[in-house]
Amino acid sequence: MSVKRKYRAKIWVTLRPSILDPAGVAVQSGLKYLGYDNVEQLRIGKYIELLINAKDDRMANQQLNDICNRMLANPVIENYRFEIIEVESQTGAF
Amino acid sequence: MSVKRKYRAKIWVTLRPSILDPAGVAVQSGLKYLGYDNVEQLRIGKYIELLINAKDDRMANQQLNDICNRMLANPVIENYRFEIIEVESQTGAF
Repeated sequence: MSVKRKYRAKIWVTLRPSILDPAGVAVQSGLKYLGYDNVEQLRIGKYIELLINAKDDRMANQQLNDICNRMLANPVIENYRFEIIEVESQTGAF
Repeated sequence: MSVKRKYRAKIWVTLRPSILDPAGVAVQSGLKYLGYDNVEQLRIGKYIELLINAKDDRMANQQLNDICNRMLANPVIENYRFEIIEVESQTGAF
């Protein structure tokens, strides 16, 4: 019998602090134009949510690390972090 | 004498659940191609960090609501939420 677990993952992908963020600079400058000159250091990243099926926490974490490194983040210029929370378990036939 | 407070804001902008996310579908399909067919319901949003100067929590929250509605999110198709945390206080001359 195998137990299949489903996890909800929340993933943050942000530019490394040393990397310039032109989109963030543009938005901050737009805000200044609208009168919000009290905003500083605006930086834009990605926020990804997904469901992943895995046999346990360890496997889910390992696969998410792989997924972030291979697909969601560019490790040369971006950092990532994620959290998982189990949403349901299903007991399978094997 | 006025006190000027500085807050760090973390802002999440996500597509409303009823709105199709073509980028998320594309990434999920790319993951499937790489062998990760255990991923479902992948959706991509924005994560923004900024510093904002304001006289108190209430004013910082109000300005962030305005900023999200006017600039960071498209309220027709996106939801937003944010958290603020005070990072420093400065006592000014007035």
